[in-house]
Amino acid sequence: MSNNRISELFNIKYPIVQGGMIWASGHKLATAVSNAGGLGLLGAGSMYPDVLRHHIQQTKAGTDKPYGVNVPLLYSDLEELMEIIIAEQVPIVFTSAGNPKTYTQTLKEAGIKVVHVVSSVKFALKAQEAGVDAVVAEGFEAGGHNGREESTTFTLIPQVAKAIELPLMAAGGIATGRGMLAAMALGADGVQVGSRFVATPEASSHINFKNAIVEAGEGATHLTLKELAPVRLLRNKFWQDVQDLYTKSPTTDDLKSLLGRARAKKGMFEGDMNEGELEIGQISGLIDSIVPAAQVVADMVSEYEQARQALLNMTIDV
Amino acid sequence: MSNNRISELFNIKYPIVQGGMIWASGHKLATAVSNAGGLGLLGAGSMYPDVLRHHIQQTKAGTDKPYGVNVPLLYSDLEELMEIIIAEQVPIVFTSAGNPKTYTQTLKEAGIKVVHVVSSVKFALKAQEAGVDAVVAEGFEAGGHNGREESTTFTLIPQVAKAIELPLMAAGGIATGRGMLAAMALGADGVQVGSRFVATPEASSHINFKNAIVEAGEGATHLTLKELAPVRLLRNKFWQDVQDLYTKSPTTDDLKSLLGRARAKKGMFEGDMNEGELEIGQISGLIDSIVPAAQVVADMVSEYEQARQALLNMTIDV
Repeated sequence: MSNNRISELFNIKYPIVQGGMIWASGHKLATAVSNAGGLGLLGAGSMYPDVLRHHIQQTKAGTDKPYGVNVPLLYSDLEELMEIIIAEQVPIVFTSAGNPKTYTQTLKEAGIKVVHVVSSVKFALKAQEAGVDAVVAEGFEAGGHNGREESTTFTLIPQVAKAIELPLMAAGGIATGRGMLAAMALGADGVQVGSRFVATPEASSHINFKNAIVEAGEGATHLTLKELAPVRLLRNKFWQDVQDLYTKSPTTDDLKSLLGRARAKKGMFEGDMNEGELEIGQISGLIDSIVPAAQVVADMVSEYEQARQALLNMTIDV
Repeated sequence: MSNNRISELFNIKYPIVQGGMIWASGHKLATAVSNAGGLGLLGAGSMYPDVLRHHIQQTKAGTDKPYGVNVPLLYSDLEELMEIIIAEQVPIVFTSAGNPKTYTQTLKEAGIKVVHVVSSVKFALKAQEAGVDAVVAEGFEAGGHNGREESTTFTLIPQVAKAIELPLMAAGGIATGRGMLAAMALGADGVQVGSRFVATPEASSHINFKNAIVEAGEGATHLTLKELAPVRLLRNKFWQDVQDLYTKSPTTDDLKSLLGRARAKKGMFEGDMNEGELEIGQISGLIDSIVPAAQVVADMVSEYEQARQALLNMTIDV
């Protein structure tokens, strides 16, 4: 894409980033997206260090295009993970869920481009101060973890675009070319797309989870567990159990105990649609098919261009 | 605006509707917006029938352009209100908060154009079945009352646009020309703008409330009282009292009792920033000045055109 700050920063054809989602974003998905002209990201959040190294090596074997890794900064073996990323010469790292100051300079000194994911203007400014190369601003409608301010993509993007100088990607609610065009109209330079890439054959998620995304209609997701870290979930039995617990004025320990361990893996990777935690975006209501990742990119690009052309005729008398 | 279904339906210059908000939208605001080329709406929800008649007559005296009235269908003297609207030959009625079947045909037989405000695909389809002329779809970020699904403008608009044939206006989070362009990219034909028009000299709201909108930053509003009818409020003392009550597992009667009567008038019209209920949209974080309503329209139009021109250059290789 000509004169686009995200395409130029990452040296990619289209300013479309595939989110590095836990239990979905392995080397098959990242490779497919990067080969299609977007930027594929590995989701380190659900990988042991050795597993991540394997996925990085497979990605390098599968594409000669740029790719990256998403690292949640709350990861327990963070130092080991970062050592592997630097040793393997990963070109791009997206950090999330933590303080961007902790690793930005270390990664940049290793020649790695660094992006931080935020859900508020306040943290976008902190990321800019920390020296990142670009920011992802993620709205309330996004899947997974989310901000306490509950700012939606429509209100967040123009406020962040006004506040920072850096290239900006919009996330949350974007699954189509029209969504991409709307994000650009609001001031974004590119988009990060999550849910739409889970419903692809290349995502490592369980087929039950992919089918649940296709079947999800409006109101099928809900942002909950705000006392721990707000997370958007499909409304399944596990979600209902959480809501039932809320009627009993639970402590945060009660909530942690119900959440327990490995709930996300059980749901998204092992396909337990009742007892598992199913993190997904509100835009799943618009997703009605499982299609290859390269097709997702191609469809977004062609719909973007079609919608852009349509706007050419929507003149207004000034 | 050429070839635009909303401009054509209402016979207005720009597809920009000023929301008929309680305690804000009297004849001064509606007249200013209609004279500026948008569509001004009176907010009947906070008017006694005689007061509405007065505002309709003043609006007719103040503009020869189309205007309308917003009627919440939960209004207690609804029949009397509708009789006045028909007798005064109001050209356009926006209905909200109720079943569109109850009055759509009566109004249409009187030659009135009817629009219904919804927050879900489900109710957009019901409105279409009821025979309305157009639909407003309002996202989670909107001020005032809101849907239980919590669908944001970014996810709601493409889903409604896909589901219905009727002209569609987007609402929630829109205060600028860029927001308008983004809404059009997502599939809307026009926009309904609320919060931005409260912060104008012509709005009948108290100056304290207008100043509070200007001062509001990100995270300043919150959707609450979901057990009654979900409503987005500024986080003032009254809002905090509601949150404090929530920690005590309140019944809906407890909530109703705290809400009491005339809280909205106390806040938005009388300017009591502590004890009053202050309904406003999340986009207030982006609003930083009180400007005349005609200027709001002119700024939106010129920013829309500027942003549209910028997109003309954002080609992508297909």
